[in-house]
Amino acid sequence: MEQKYAIIVAGGSGKRMGAEIPKQFIELAGKPILMHTLEAFYKYDYKISLVLVLPKSQHKYWNQLIQKHSFTIKHTVVRGGVERFYSVKNGLDAILNNGWVAVHDGVRPLVSQDTISRCFDEAINGKNVIPVMALNESIRKIKNGESKAVNRNNYFLVQTPQVFSVDTLKKAYKQDYACAFTDDASVVENMGYKITTVDGNPENIKITRPMDLKIAEVLLK
Amino acid sequence: MEQKYAIIVAGGSGKRMGAEIPKQFIELAGKPILMHTLEAFYKYDYKISLVLVLPKSQHKYWNQLIQKHSFTIKHTVVRGGVERFYSVKNGLDAILNNGWVAVHDGVRPLVSQDTISRCFDEAINGKNVIPVMALNESIRKIKNGESKAVNRNNYFLVQTPQVFSVDTLKKAYKQDYACAFTDDASVVENMGYKITTVDGNPENIKITRPMDLKIAEVLLK
Repeated sequence: MEQKYAIIVAGGSGKRMGAEIPKQFIELAGKPILMHTLEAFYKYDYKISLVLVLPKSQHKYWNQLIQKHSFTIKHTVVRGGVERFYSVKNGLDAILNNGWVAVHDGVRPLVSQDTISRCFDEAINGKNVIPVMALNESIRKIKNGESKAVNRNNYFLVQTPQVFSVDTLKKAYKQDYACAFTDDASVVENMGYKITTVDGNPENIKITRPMDLKIAEVLLK
Repeated sequence: MEQKYAIIVAGGSGKRMGAEIPKQFIELAGKPILMHTLEAFYKYDYKISLVLVLPKSQHKYWNQLIQKHSFTIKHTVVRGGVERFYSVKNGLDAILNNGWVAVHDGVRPLVSQDTISRCFDEAINGKNVIPVMALNESIRKIKNGESKAVNRNNYFLVQTPQVFSVDTLKKAYKQDYACAFTDDASVVENMGYKITTVDGNPENIKITRPMDLKIAEVLLK
């Protein structure tokens, strides 16, 4: 059995939350969001190697939080880049062996064990995997300033963790950065590889707005 | 000043919620969801004419709820159709004068006064109006069984109320039903009319899953 890795990307500066502290550090049920996220992967597999990507300026504060909350889950901390792309790249540089790697948003603490499991299982089957959710509402495309209805059944919301072989993801991240690289799947896809979708879980929301924090609190119960 | 109307469409049978009672009747903060929704429009303009579209089989139960909750906001109840399209059509048949009409999902009780106001204001300016929200997450398109990343900045989630002149909407609903008619804007657009988007409000969620009910409860506070 080859090694499993999870790169947890937390680049938030707190601006969008209207908060003093970056969103990944905001407490949810008495604990920073990021600790819930790391715990989710540890619970999935206590042997997983966790790599946390955090802006350099936040490393000291993170260490203080670890002390304060007596957080004992082992993880490596690496510095974030100016774009998510560079942050993931830095995370990958900390992975020295082969195996499978999940890249996960630090502010998605409510990822289920089932979602993580579905993603790793398919990756181990040789797939490039992302968890998705059906759209609950109609969507429209804006084209030349005009909007057009599109069939929502053809579209899916993309969550994380996105899971790949270490080898594939490292190769993909050797490409030059492009603005179209909004997630890891788009980077891998640009190499010509196929992406496989599995079911995510509806609670696996990305906490970006103050409203999301309230929602996460109720979903955690 | 011409008359304002709101057609509140509630067709849920309760299956998706895993509940005994249809989702529009589930209590939120001590009151059926549908009463919150009707109240939102009444609060926006106490002179608005409210038309509630409800499956015929639920009319009796609705009357019982009205008694039980001493609900006093005046509204007309009409019977629902087999598709949302026919429900809205039935609602329109109950509107006999000119003016502006909002069509709103019964299970969106958290629509803000600002959203309703923005929609009516633009409709009164001659536009066909829908409230939209930017996508918070990446989306993918499924094409021939394969998924492709698409630029999420070109797509928006569509909410309600969707507001039009009574005349325009009545004309649009004279068309034969097509499966692509997933909301009122798509029906109006099919006549060749342009759709104008305004900002919705993030709390204006559609309550369809048990999880949404929990979220709505916390957002209502």
